[in-house]
Amino acid sequence: MKIKVGINGYGTIGKRVAYAVTKQDDMELIGVTKTKPDFEAYRAKELGISVYAASEEFIPRFEKAGFEVEGTLEDLLEKVDVIVDATPGGMGAKNKALYEKHGVKAIFQGGEKAEVAEASFVAQANYENALGKNYVRVVSCNTTGLTRTLNAIKDYIDYVYAVMIRRAADPNDIKRGPVNAIKPSVKVPSHHGPDVQTVIPINIETTAFVVPTTLMHVHSVMVELKKPIEARDVVDIFEGTTRVLLFEEGRGFSSTAQLIEFARDMHREWNNLYEIAVWKESINVKGNRLFYIQAVHQESDVVPENIDAIRAMFELADKWESIKKTNKSLGILK
Amino acid sequence: MKIKVGINGYGTIGKRVAYAVTKQDDMELIGVTKTKPDFEAYRAKELGISVYAASEEFIPRFEKAGFEVEGTLEDLLEKVDVIVDATPGGMGAKNKALYEKHGVKAIFQGGEKAEVAEASFVAQANYENALGKNYVRVVSCNTTGLTRTLNAIKDYIDYVYAVMIRRAADPNDIKRGPVNAIKPSVKVPSHHGPDVQTVIPINIETTAFVVPTTLMHVHSVMVELKKPIEARDVVDIFEGTTRVLLFEEGRGFSSTAQLIEFARDMHREWNNLYEIAVWKESINVKGNRLFYIQAVHQESDVVPENIDAIRAMFELADKWESIKKTNKSLGILK
Amino acid sequence: MKIKVGINGYGTIGKRVAYAVTKQDDMELIGVTKTKPDFEAYRAKELGISVYAASEEFIPRFEKAGFEVEGTLEDLLEKVDVIVDATPGGMGAKNKALYEKHGVKAIFQGGEKAEVAEASFVAQANYENALGKNYVRVVSCNTTGLTRTLNAIKDYIDYVYAVMIRRAADPNDIKRGPVNAIKPSVKVPSHHGPDVQTVIPINIETTAFVVPTTLMHVHSVMVELKKPIEARDVVDIFEGTTRVLLFEEGRGFSSTAQLIEFARDMHREWNNLYEIAVWKESINVKGNRLFYIQAVHQESDVVPENIDAIRAMFELADKWESIKKTNKSLGILK
Amino acid sequence: MKIKVGINGYGTIGKRVAYAVTKQDDMELIGVTKTKPDFEAYRAKELGISVYAASEEFIPRFEKAGFEVEGTLEDLLEKVDVIVDATPGGMGAKNKALYEKHGVKAIFQGGEKAEVAEASFVAQANYENALGKNYVRVVSCNTTGLTRTLNAIKDYIDYVYAVMIRRAADPNDIKRGPVNAIKPSVKVPSHHGPDVQTVIPINIETTAFVVPTTLMHVHSVMVELKKPIEARDVVDIFEGTTRVLLFEEGRGFSSTAQLIEFARDMHREWNNLYEIAVWKESINVKGNRLFYIQAVHQESDVVPENIDAIRAMFELADKWESIKKTNKSLGILK
Ligand SMILES: NC(=O)c1ccc[n+]([C@@H]2O[C@H](COP(=O)([O-])OP(=O)(O)OC[C@H]3O[C@@H](n4cnc5c(N)ncnc54)[C@H](O)[C@@H]3O)[C@@H](O)[C@H]2O)c1
Ligand SMILES: NC(=O)c1ccc[n+]([C@@H]2O[C@H](COP(=O)([O-])OP(=O)(O)OC[C@H]3O[C@@H](n4cnc5c(N)ncnc54)[C@H](O)[C@@H]3O)[C@@H](O)[C@H]2O)c1
Ligand SMILES: NC(=O)c1ccc[n+]([C@@H]2O[C@H](COP(=O)([O-])OP(=O)(O)OC[C@H]3O[C@@H](n4cnc5c(N)ncnc54)[C@H](O)[C@@H]3O)[C@@H](O)[C@H]2O)c1
Ligand SMILES: NC(=O)c1ccc[n+]([C@@H]2O[C@H](COP(=O)([O-])OP(=O)(O)OC[C@H]3O[C@@H](n4cnc5c(N)ncnc54)[C@H](O)[C@@H]3O)[C@@H](O)[C@H]2O)c1
Repeated sequence: MKIKVGINGYGTIGKRVAYAVTKQDDMELIGVTKTKPDFEAYRAKELGISVYAASEEFIPRFEKAGFEVEGTLEDLLEKVDVIVDATPGGMGAKNKALYEKHGVKAIFQGGEKAEVAEASFVAQANYENALGKNYVRVVSCNTTGLTRTLNAIKDYIDYVYAVMIRRAADPNDIKRGPVNAIKPSVKVPSHHGPDVQTVIPINIETTAFVVPTTLMHVHSVMVELKKPIEARDVVDIFEGTTRVLLFEEGRGFSSTAQLIEFARDMHREWNNLYEIAVWKESINVKGNRLFYIQAVHQESDVVPENIDAIRAMFELADKWESIKKTNKSLGILK
Repeated sequence: MKIKVGINGYGTIGKRVAYAVTKQDDMELIGVTKTKPDFEAYRAKELGISVYAASEEFIPRFEKAGFEVEGTLEDLLEKVDVIVDATPGGMGAKNKALYEKHGVKAIFQGGEKAEVAEASFVAQANYENALGKNYVRVVSCNTTGLTRTLNAIKDYIDYVYAVMIRRAADPNDIKRGPVNAIKPSVKVPSHHGPDVQTVIPINIETTAFVVPTTLMHVHSVMVELKKPIEARDVVDIFEGTTRVLLFEEGRGFSSTAQLIEFARDMHREWNNLYEIAVWKESINVKGNRLFYIQAVHQESDVVPENIDAIRAMFELADKWESIKKTNKSLGILK
Repeated sequence: MKIKVGINGYGTIGKRVAYAVTKQDDMELIGVTKTKPDFEAYRAKELGISVYAASEEFIPRFEKAGFEVEGTLEDLLEKVDVIVDATPGGMGAKNKALYEKHGVKAIFQGGEKAEVAEASFVAQANYENALGKNYVRVVSCNTTGLTRTLNAIKDYIDYVYAVMIRRAADPNDIKRGPVNAIKPSVKVPSHHGPDVQTVIPINIETTAFVVPTTLMHVHSVMVELKKPIEARDVVDIFEGTTRVLLFEEGRGFSSTAQLIEFARDMHREWNNLYEIAVWKESINVKGNRLFYIQAVHQESDVVPENIDAIRAMFELADKWESIKKTNKSLGILK
Repeated sequence: MKIKVGINGYGTIGKRVAYAVTKQDDMELIGVTKTKPDFEAYRAKELGISVYAASEEFIPRFEKAGFEVEGTLEDLLEKVDVIVDATPGGMGAKNKALYEKHGVKAIFQGGEKAEVAEASFVAQANYENALGKNYVRVVSCNTTGLTRTLNAIKDYIDYVYAVMIRRAADPNDIKRGPVNAIKPSVKVPSHHGPDVQTVIPINIETTAFVVPTTLMHVHSVMVELKKPIEARDVVDIFEGTTRVLLFEEGRGFSSTAQLIEFARDMHREWNNLYEIAVWKESINVKGNRLFYIQAVHQESDVVPENIDAIRAMFELADKWESIKKTNKSLGILK
């Protein structure tokens, strides 16, 4: 029996999760909400996706454009088992009352506070936490990225200090700057460390910066080791870790631009790089400190997490069953 | 009998033309040349494409990396009917002697001078010029872009003045700047006007600028009309013109970023936007002057032209037969 | 008797006009308004400039920071003969009633509609229009740039088509994008043409684009000539035109970055380039068409215009007297 | 008796050091070398600075442009006591033989290897090392930045991990990218740590990234403390440290753009920010770890170091005498 899924907020994350849902044989995409009849709304219709108005107030816009909607969010909530909330950060919390009213399970994204859900979620780290739950928060692109590699070596971790160099705007967002500046989060350590701790209980502190690029975030990770390990072993661990890929500068991967070119060469939809990219040559151990550099495709790394969260909430599969199924459906390499 | 095609220079243009060739039922991709065993070379191999060393001097690099090549460019030239030269600008002319020595037809790209070939080529404008020819030059991304729309209205043209705002570097090129400047070509009019005239005999002058973006070029076109026409008629003409698409700002297409997002939403490989994008609202006639603004995806607009050029050179089909066949094979909308 | 000048809005334009006022022997800077006690407010105080709260509502912010203000805008209006309104675009019109109430003359900036003032103003073009006026609008950075060169050759002008490539954000504005896109004004011709006509009655149409840079705007100008002229003559005219400088790519001025480096090498405050920069090699005549490319330093080209406007409104000097005096005071080269 | 100074390489660093030399009452600028008669060469002449051809091979360029030079580098070397080598990185080492031949002292910049000189130099950290020396290396902009703050707290340092987010190109360099990418140095730890150790013997490791901005570098510094200290104490130490300034985001300093705006508001030549800018709110101690974020104006932070190096090499003054004299001459705040 397929789980009926709705997407509230068909934007950068919403449209990718919607696509991923259509790739699952145990889920059915019932519909998505839009706030205006833009080209993304027309594209959804072309793909046969039912489009609902995000709320009553947006109906006139659709009518004026002659764009037929299937109803409003509340109509969609009547037809789904679970709603994936991918509205702008902070808006999910406000929608929760509505989801409760309609008795549907809900998945929130990283732009919401942890308190909005019963569990913060990164499949490979704490899949079990979401089993049977009604409200789950898929953590942010950065927290997902940090968790995937740090979880793989968590037995070696005494302390982690990660510096996050973040893109200023997504490729499709032309409103946000800066055009020519580096903007630090002066609150040090930044909120990202605690956010990782909502998923894995490690000792981590972070600092964060915004720089004028759209492609990916980059993390400079330093781990103080509880017990010794060789760089070679860390390479092996990451080679064996799902949704983490090692890239060699020696093969031409000299920046985030080439990582995205790889996703384009693989003909990935929306040049999605679901996997966290670790530069192989950057993995180095000096004394009791491990260093490595990784890059995160913020537009897509959380997409497979949304799929696994649905499976955990409806107990459709255990952890590795779901992860393997999701990976296969989206062409994730391992 | 399939035409055997080789690609000399598997880069931004080369790898897209190679892919397009594999999509044609009347052509066969025999192999491509690379100068080094980078991730693009490994990807080619993964796709089952035979990789040749661009020349003798590059063999050691491949051997050192344990990357087996099928031979050198000269070996490839022995096995093909036509070589598509997609090496960096200016290098094609130097390779011509080699192509002549091996008696293969050759297609050159826009980075070469017109004199390198018997005909400069934009399928919808002068397909017949390339019929049976041995050496054809597919003109540059900008000239292709200007030709597609101007050719459609050439009977109305007395004089054209086009200003070209060009991207500084392709997405995959991290060496070139500027990071924060506008760089004019102070030679006014620029060389682009005459380049259009190698394809269609219209009275055109251009000026060109480089700006810090990677996504697309944008052209501001002003046409002084020989005979009157309404903006509505121009819209109809462009609606009926192959490889030209009208986009509405009203539907959210407010910049080149949203045009590329459209290509991503269409799940186009490498987010290719083969078609020239004309902003519908920008088409306006005032007195005897027609204005319109268009955008060019420099990485992909010339790809279908290479396919049609092969057909013309081997007289496999007439103009519209080839164009229709190429469009269908690559998912070009019209 | 010095004219008492106040500045409402000590931002990018306001602080430069304030500085220019202090450089005039026939004017006195009475005070400026700020909305918050930021580093620009503290710097004003350091320079001995009286800082007023832009309005009542901002007083608490200053009190909380222990930053003493001299009162509010209305207090400042009581002490000045003329207020220079350099508040964000559109806000000037709202302030006009207040200026009328306090019986002070007012100068508005280019972000306001022409109707807000009795005259739109570019000193060298229509100084006389502002003689004795109460409300004058110094036109925008782009309109000022176009007017300075076109006014110099207006007797030769039959028709002008100018394409404006505009910076996305000022250097000090990190909120606005785009980071990686070209954004056209799809309304063609754009509003800039008519704005030039508020100063000089020429037949001009324009199109405008925003690109990801902060340094300067660049204009590609095409003039259809009423009577013949040689490129050499245009060079001579511009050489003799105040607040217009010819730069040679041959001497290293290959982009807007080098024009700003020149202003930095001249140790100009805030790297101000008051003068419009025309690339000498770009000046070319072909048939009845004149082409040239110019760059505009949007942060400073309107500053001398504000000073001359004050002189015209209080009839302190005739046109060339004021222009020469202003140029000398600010180190404008000619 | 004034020390006769020559500058070999009148570029980004060279022209700023030349200017600084003219501001010293115990030094005399004899001349500078240029490779071509560009606008910087003409500006030098305008300022009355003697311009020499960097070498014989460049003379024809100057002759062709009718630009008179005073001779070649070798002629300049005959007239000076010390040459400041500010040629592109790596070129200084090649010039050393020439300097030795002419028996002149020489100062090299951070683009050279430490071995080129008898001492690597940051005035406030190891002024004495350069006393009487013939060859001194002023370290790079990044090493100078790290040394200034770390030297002030070196007694508390057990271990330092600094992540450096570096500008892609100087404002005046339009050749280098990337336009849209983050490029890591995959060699971890990067060479910057050891470079700091050529000046102060602390335990430091670094990682480095290039991002698409021109204004400043930014460092994220984490110090593991040898003995406890409060954030307040670190603030006091930095407040008392020369050539280090504390900036508050609360006052509007939200990014490197506002730090440069501050230098512009201070009417600093070339918007020089000689001082290292530390964000006050970023200074935080958690457990045995101190965090802080600083920004470095790469174009100018090394300029005062060149002046102090000259004084040390000719033993004109002791450390604090020279530093105070240099600071006063350049308007360095403390
Ligand atoms: N973009 C990223 O890099 C990224 C990465 C990981 C997680 N997230 C998180 O995912 C969530 C969505 O982010 P995004 O980048 O997709 O945003 P987005 O702006 O691209 O998409 C948000 C969508 O919600 C729609 N919307 C706006 N108001 C709405 C309303 N009242 N009701 C319903 N829909 C509404 C918008 O029209 C838009 O289509 C946020 O919590 C964000 O923090 C974003
Ligand atoms: N990129 C664009 O925007 C664009 C658009 C239209 C046309 N063109 C034209 O297409 C041609 C190729 O441009 P591109 O952007 O694909 O260049 P590119 O640099 O992306 O690719 C060139 C390829 O040729 C290879 N190469 C280098 N030297 C070689 C040699 N000696 N022999 C064989 N191969 C060699 C390089 O390794 C690279 O793989 C040029 O003429 C260019 O002007 C480029
Ligand atoms: N920046 C440019 O490129 C440029 C060039 C030419 C003309 N202009 C015009 O000059 C005017 C000012 O532009 P700007 O770039 O200096 O803007 P800005 O944002 O840099 O400065 C505006 C100043 O006004 C202050 N302010 C905001 N609200 C206010 C209020 N209610 N009352 C008083 N002050 C208030 C702001 O705090 C700020 O200090 C606009 O009309 C603009 O169109 C700007
Ligand atoms: N720009 C920075 O951010 C920065 C900061 C600190 C230190 N440095 C170091 O300072 C040195 C100079 O760097 P820069 O940024 O000023 O370089 P630059 O390119 O701006 O200036 C170098 C100058 O040397 C001239 N030159 C080139 N070849 C020459 C030759 N053969 N002989 C003499 N002069 C020659 C060039 O014409 C140019 O004027 C390098 O070692 C660099 O690593 C640079």
